[in-house]
Amino acid sequence: MFSGHNYIGFTPGSQGEKKLKVFSTARQDFLPEDFSVATDDEIQVATEKAAAAFDVYKKIDSDQRAAFLETIAEEISNLGDKLIQRAILETGLTEARLTGERARTMNQLRMFANLLREGSWVEAVIDPAMPDRKPLPRADLRKMLLPIGPVVVFGASNFPFAFSTAGGDTASALAAGCPVIVKAHSSHLGTNELVATAIIAAAKKTGMPDGVFSFLIGEGGKLGQALAKHPAIKAIGFTGSYKAGMSLYKTATSERAVPIPVYAEMSSINPVLVLPEKIEASADAVAAQLSASITLGVGQFCTNPGLIFVIDQPITETFISKLSNQLAAVPEATMLNQTICKSYYTGRGKITHEKGVKTVFLGEDAGNSFKGSPGLFEVNAIDFISNNDLQNEIFGPASLVIRCSDQAQLIQALHSVHGQLTATVFGTPGDIRDYKDCVNILVEKCGRLVFNSVPTGVEVCHAMIHGGPFPATTDGRTTSVGAEAIKRFVRPVCFQDCPEDFLPDALKDSNPLGIMRKVDGVYVTATRFQEQEH
Amino acid sequence: MFSGHNYIGFTPGSQGEKKLKVFSTARQDFLPEDFSVATDDEIQVATEKAAAAFDVYKKIDSDQRAAFLETIAEEISNLGDKLIQRAILETGLTEARLTGERARTMNQLRMFANLLREGSWVEAVIDPAMPDRKPLPRADLRKMLLPIGPVVVFGASNFPFAFSTAGGDTASALAAGCPVIVKAHSSHLGTNELVATAIIAAAKKTGMPDGVFSFLIGEGGKLGQALAKHPAIKAIGFTGSYKAGMSLYKTATSERAVPIPVYAEMSSINPVLVLPEKIEASADAVAAQLSASITLGVGQFCTNPGLIFVIDQPITETFISKLSNQLAAVPEATMLNQTICKSYYTGRGKITHEKGVKTVFLGEDAGNSFKGSPGLFEVNAIDFISNNDLQNEIFGPASLVIRCSDQAQLIQALHSVHGQLTATVFGTPGDIRDYKDCVNILVEKCGRLVFNSVPTGVEVCHAMIHGGPFPATTDGRTTSVGAEAIKRFVRPVCFQDCPEDFLPDALKDSNPLGIMRKVDGVYVTATRFQEQEH
Repeated sequence: MFSGHNYIGFTPGSQGEKKLKVFSTARQDFLPEDFSVATDDEIQVATEKAAAAFDVYKKIDSDQRAAFLETIAEEISNLGDKLIQRAILETGLTEARLTGERARTMNQLRMFANLLREGSWVEAVIDPAMPDRKPLPRADLRKMLLPIGPVVVFGASNFPFAFSTAGGDTASALAAGCPVIVKAHSSHLGTNELVATAIIAAAKKTGMPDGVFSFLIGEGGKLGQALAKHPAIKAIGFTGSYKAGMSLYKTATSERAVPIPVYAEMSSINPVLVLPEKIEASADAVAAQLSASITLGVGQFCTNPGLIFVIDQPITETFISKLSNQLAAVPEATMLNQTICKSYYTGRGKITHEKGVKTVFLGEDAGNSFKGSPGLFEVNAIDFISNNDLQNEIFGPASLVIRCSDQAQLIQALHSVHGQLTATVFGTPGDIRDYKDCVNILVEKCGRLVFNSVPTGVEVCHAMIHGGPFPATTDGRTTSVGAEAIKRFVRPVCFQDCPEDFLPDALKDSNPLGIMRKVDGVYVTATRFQEQEH
Repeated sequence: MFSGHNYIGFTPGSQGEKKLKVFSTARQDFLPEDFSVATDDEIQVATEKAAAAFDVYKKIDSDQRAAFLETIAEEISNLGDKLIQRAILETGLTEARLTGERARTMNQLRMFANLLREGSWVEAVIDPAMPDRKPLPRADLRKMLLPIGPVVVFGASNFPFAFSTAGGDTASALAAGCPVIVKAHSSHLGTNELVATAIIAAAKKTGMPDGVFSFLIGEGGKLGQALAKHPAIKAIGFTGSYKAGMSLYKTATSERAVPIPVYAEMSSINPVLVLPEKIEASADAVAAQLSASITLGVGQFCTNPGLIFVIDQPITETFISKLSNQLAAVPEATMLNQTICKSYYTGRGKITHEKGVKTVFLGEDAGNSFKGSPGLFEVNAIDFISNNDLQNEIFGPASLVIRCSDQAQLIQALHSVHGQLTATVFGTPGDIRDYKDCVNILVEKCGRLVFNSVPTGVEVCHAMIHGGPFPATTDGRTTSVGAEAIKRFVRPVCFQDCPEDFLPDALKDSNPLGIMRKVDGVYVTATRFQEQEH
């Protein structure tokens, strides 16, 4: 069922002698299949093919690129239950979760296909010539976004579909017109292989060039660094640990002749603010929502709420104990891989020794069976503010409550919070008025601000921002989920007095794509531009 | 007439004992005034004021920000002739050029004011809630661009108005909602001071917070590095040398706890492709246009054409000699400052010793009087391809002709060209068809592709891209001129289920700003959204 191949463009590659096996935390053993580590030569050929494919792929029109993305979705669907069953084995996630994630992944591909067909995402802007302008005539100037070139995507362990081989980074880069080389995540190599074959089948069916997609297997940083340093690579999409993300960022910004952008989503502990009136009115409901969010997917979400800020009042103790009871009722569950499980228990252990940290609840250590159990800790604001280590991500079902004496102290504590993917406010309308300054601080800290619901659950839509200030990501100007994710893999080019023949369709006078464009500072459709200019 | 002060927000500061004087290449002597180097304490207070001002300034509505920008333009206009006269003394540029540049600078401020009033630049996107969606309801999600925080701007020597104190970086950062700290360029400190006082007068008149603008004087890298490392600074705008730009890039990406974006426009030699039919048809005209462009402003433009690619044919020799004659007719003229003049003659001298380089024309060395004279060199494609040093920018009125034997060699030579602000094609329609592959290579190399006119002259408009792949800039995804420049100083934030009260105006249901927004994937005006949703 598994070949263990790399895919060097359309060509399977297994030249390497070194093989990897996947350890299944669900089965508590290695799975039998061998996966072949890419050789230096295979890496080189994949990058060359990507560079050559770029010249072809960037010129393929939006409709065909859209068809490619939709066919990938179909091919993933065609993999059927064997994909889900393999992913269960390799990730320990549940069938329900994986089925949902697969649907999300296919919808994401289709969303980008729709975005391509709609077409305005290229931000076409036209300033027509003004030959009679005084003192100087104006040239005809037209700009649009064009693809940046071959992109390397690093799959994440915690979303074997949605942030992996055919996940958001791959979908948005392919949509933008960039060939993709995926570095497979070694925790779910079989899942990766199945999805890679789906992408390749789709590329062949829709006539995409060899090299538009490659799939490489490697150990730790070696393959990743080789790709990040390669001159043919023009951007990197990454989801994973702070350490690995920063290592890629360092390489991309300081160890290349030509630096490239790195979109690394790394580390977020997603502060939650539970405000006084809300806690009085709905302690049970908020505790239940937070407990469910903290333990969702065994806490292995980048949007997992890791910090909970409360103001000391009579009900605070009750709220914390309700939350603790809720967490205590959640059974331990299988984690994604050995490393994550070990790090979780190490992180959970460390925090109990930090100054002022009190353990509220600690589920039994089930690390021997690779299962994670919940943990809840508390600390006062002063100790929180003075100790940056309390902001190290503990990836798993644990959270830290920060007790603040009053709003002034809460403001200080929030100022000390690092950049985050999300921040959440539980508050009544009165709370939000009274604590406006606190909520405004959170706006500065995050990419998405959630009101009265939990941060886990990232909608794939036009308005989504799944990004945020450092260290949540290396580039807080972008998102890795939602339609705007495509903007990471493009750059603007301006054409001055360009002959109509040579202009890209998006910029032609006749607007053959029928897209919305900004003409002389005004957003217009085809008709309006034609009326104005002809 | 000159106080020699720094401006720490609204407060003049001259605590430092160290003073600078401006050397006037026009007068060939130091000008009498002393300018005070900012002390560490003044730097610190300026950044603190910028951080505090950000909290106020970001909430000031677009109309008021627009009025601030327009008032800066008025105050610059009010400086009258003394500004022009001082700039002539400090830069050696002509009155006509400086008057034009001042108009451009004021127009740029007004363009951003108009952009703010129009309002759609914030890219408001709304995906309304779908409470009944199956299997899961959708939350209400709304995103827009918000200002990033205090920005440091490094003025350039060659545009004392348009890329300096109130230039494009300052205008776009202030428009975005970011306070600005300008590091004055030491070659035109008097000009800077006048413009700084205009900005401060405008800030006071329009009720902007103290700290929205500061103005600091310093030597070489010391002040720049202190600002680039400061935690309160969230982005850097820079125009200048490769060395200085890369030093800021290194600091910003690897020597800060939190990396920040650097928009450094550094080094571009702007390749020009003169194609066979065109050269046959219009050798005189093209030679005249190129000569004028090479020597415009004594060649001190970032878009100066430094590489001219031709294909060997009978007329090539004639074309080169026409160009040489044209250049020989251009008199030497005063350069911006001593360093630039010295570097120009050093660079011009060095290139004559590079392998295969032949001097076509060399104007007399007028470095003793700080004047630059034109130079023209030629080399064959093979020597060009094998020697990266031929792509070092020679900032001044010099250019290198690359002779290619045929299209295949031209393609190779173009592939070896580094990233550029601009690339230019002189070609008939037939040429452009025949050399399509060459033109396509240029698209990959530049931010702006010019057809049948010269790259100097950068229009301030909606479609302008004044940016390009490294080493032209450190961030080829952006522009430093034109409306899109504002996007450098913002980041997207998504609001999930946010109460109407707390939503920024751009995202409120009622669309009080009346801006175009993307609602459920469709671009709509206020009315349409209201019709759809209410």
